[in-house]
Amino acid sequence: MKLLFQHVTAVLMDRDRRVLSNAFVAVEEGRITAVGTEKPAGSFDRVIDGRGGLLMPGLVNCHTHTAMTSMRGYGDGHDLHTWLNDYIFPVEDRWDDRAIRAAADLGLMEMIASGTTCVADMYMRMPVVGKAIAQAGISANLCNGAIFFGEDFSPAACGDCAKQEELFSAWHGYDRGRIRVDAALHAEYTSTPALWEWIADFAKSKGIGMHVHISETQKEHEQCKASRGKTPIQALAERGVFDVRAIAAHCVFTERSDWDIMAQKGVTAVHNPCSNLKLGSGVAPIPGLLKAGVNVALGTDGVSSNNDMDMFEEMKLAAILQNGVHQDPLALTAWDALEMATVNGARALGRETGQIAVGKDADLILLDPDAPNLIPCHDAANNIAYAAHGSNVKLNMCRGKVIYENGEFLTIDRERILAEVRQYTIPLLFGK
Amino acid sequence: MKLLFQHVTAVLMDRDRRVLSNAFVAVEEGRITAVGTEKPAGSFDRVIDGRGGLLMPGLVNCHTHTAMTSMRGYGDGHDLHTWLNDYIFPVEDRWDDRAIRAAADLGLMEMIASGTTCVADMYMRMPVVGKAIAQAGISANLCNGAIFFGEDFSPAACGDCAKQEELFSAWHGYDRGRIRVDAALHAEYTSTPALWEWIADFAKSKGIGMHVHISETQKEHEQCKASRGKTPIQALAERGVFDVRAIAAHCVFTERSDWDIMAQKGVTAVHNPCSNLKLGSGVAPIPGLLKAGVNVALGTDGVSSNNDMDMFEEMKLAAILQNGVHQDPLALTAWDALEMATVNGARALGRETGQIAVGKDADLILLDPDAPNLIPCHDAANNIAYAAHGSNVKLNMCRGKVIYENGEFLTIDRERILAEVRQYTIPLLFGK
Repeated sequence: MKLLFQHVTAVLMDRDRRVLSNAFVAVEEGRITAVGTEKPAGSFDRVIDGRGGLLMPGLVNCHTHTAMTSMRGYGDGHDLHTWLNDYIFPVEDRWDDRAIRAAADLGLMEMIASGTTCVADMYMRMPVVGKAIAQAGISANLCNGAIFFGEDFSPAACGDCAKQEELFSAWHGYDRGRIRVDAALHAEYTSTPALWEWIADFAKSKGIGMHVHISETQKEHEQCKASRGKTPIQALAERGVFDVRAIAAHCVFTERSDWDIMAQKGVTAVHNPCSNLKLGSGVAPIPGLLKAGVNVALGTDGVSSNNDMDMFEEMKLAAILQNGVHQDPLALTAWDALEMATVNGARALGRETGQIAVGKDADLILLDPDAPNLIPCHDAANNIAYAAHGSNVKLNMCRGKVIYENGEFLTIDRERILAEVRQYTIPLLFGK
Repeated sequence: MKLLFQHVTAVLMDRDRRVLSNAFVAVEEGRITAVGTEKPAGSFDRVIDGRGGLLMPGLVNCHTHTAMTSMRGYGDGHDLHTWLNDYIFPVEDRWDDRAIRAAADLGLMEMIASGTTCVADMYMRMPVVGKAIAQAGISANLCNGAIFFGEDFSPAACGDCAKQEELFSAWHGYDRGRIRVDAALHAEYTSTPALWEWIADFAKSKGIGMHVHISETQKEHEQCKASRGKTPIQALAERGVFDVRAIAAHCVFTERSDWDIMAQKGVTAVHNPCSNLKLGSGVAPIPGLLKAGVNVALGTDGVSSNNDMDMFEEMKLAAILQNGVHQDPLALTAWDALEMATVNGARALGRETGQIAVGKDADLILLDPDAPNLIPCHDAANNIAYAAHGSNVKLNMCRGKVIYENGEFLTIDRERILAEVRQYTIPLLFGK
């Protein structure tokens, strides 16, 4: 299948931040094969006329828990402790595979309709989530965040160690790497140095990446310093956790010394501004991280603390939040936010996505040229970062395959999933 | 025309924060005539089945500059001074009535499609904006922000005084009060005490409200204190500016003593979180204002500093921003944000809107029951404040008249306006 986008405003997300007007982008066998302002030679099975609309790389959501979509708003309005212990954890005890699958599909619908083409998902029962991702068509780095509290760690004593192996065997490399598996530690405060060493070795032995929650709350950050005499980043780095490609979700309370370690080891900070604000965690020090040379990507976090999956919303919040908090209208720019949501996310996940360039994965989204909220378009990056909504996505292409177009899902049966969530998942989880 | 909404989840926005499941809401002659869980007697010209979707009061955008929509993103990425002087002001010099009308229509399309039913608009050439509002069908409090820098104030010397009179004569009371006119002062720092006294007397003599920008930036707030020995709120209050129903836009740097004056005089603070963050102004002290008993409403500000008109986005940002900044997940709740966007806005503008109750204006919006991002719905307020997008609005009714439904504008010719903006307004303003 050879496909051509024509008459698009192509936001390349290259180093020079080029935007090509009236551009052509050709796609074949899952990859971008031509980009330019001249029509490429040859015939195409399908030509999509963008009528001047913005064509950009699909968005990379670098930290979420897709199946938690079924807990949207559940237990909101309580403090963090009550929310987790009285609402989230008891519900999580009730999951079965069927419910996880439907909840993952619900989250995927929301992601796909709002322009996400690649996701890093950390949750439980992940082999089932893998099935949902496989069918939906987007790319994903899946992981199962390991937790172990005991003194007497052994891989056999920690159920999550077996789950890392199981997930890796089931899904790593599926569909030419569309699905990959990363190793994962839930967090410093829910594990022990023995597990850190095991998980670091596991990741190295498999040649995969690492995904960890880092310094999301002031309490966990300060308690780590008090008990271990070092920050979570320092503590985990010492045990080799960051010796592989690694993403650190949140980083709200990371410090200058952490940033140096992250920059040196190539650890990506995943900024989740909606969740961090909503839960009262705080505002991550993004300008500091960027200045220190840390790769910063963007995530929605789980819907239970967001409460949606719209990466455009996340991009806008990232772009404006630092300006306000630092009283500096230039603290973060539209381009900064756009890079966080695309090319930086690709780097975080070790993927050839997030850019419109020959040889890259054909992960592309086309925005509606007639959406009133995108008119006028004085500057493409400004319109994307500050004015666009997920609902402006007319077409979502993952690895060369159109999976969503004009409101229709082409890989997910929308009606069946909505019915399944309403009739099975919600009654199972919430008894109603 | 008698109209009935049935099988809706009605978010009443009453004092008890009631949400009625499987509810009926009847509408006749522009007003709500019945609300309850029993079907009202009588026959109806049209029955709209909400299929369990959320029916809520239309959103009240209490501070914007609608026609600035045509400057979306123009000059972004510069500091405030450069942005205003090198971009916004030169463009504003080029306006003509035809361009203002098309730009206002563009902004109205965006507002209507995202659920706004009432707006407070301060800008220039306002009689033309009145024409756009009259046709579009929403309610509006229009005003022309007066500016005067000279020492020798007289109503004749200040062109904006005549404009207040002209706007009042042209539009105040139109269509049974659907359009009203308020007096307006641009700001303390762009005017003099003599103008303040004139405008206060003008508002009192006409029996209308007042609209002023207040303490948006730290600089203007501190300069006022340095030069006048008092805050903008204190300075204007002394000259009678707040002796009528009044709305104070921004209030980012207002202080405890200001809040007491505002609470005592019934001045509404209009929170514009997107704009305040984007421009690097800061974070308004909303929990303090609310605790002091000040009515707090919500606005998008102009698109040139937002850069969109989606009040759902504004509501979400309002709801989560204070939590993050104060590191308290309960600093502001979903209900607080919802009240700011509806019933508090109605109070600010002196209107019978913002609630679903018998006798109120039938300003109602219906959300899509099958939008994946609104499923599940554990709590209506949470879903509205945290998860809903403007694009979830299936139907917008203003004063009993459906003006938008399933993506179609029923009062505005979408194609004509988009063409007019593209072919006339943009070339005129930006020379391209």
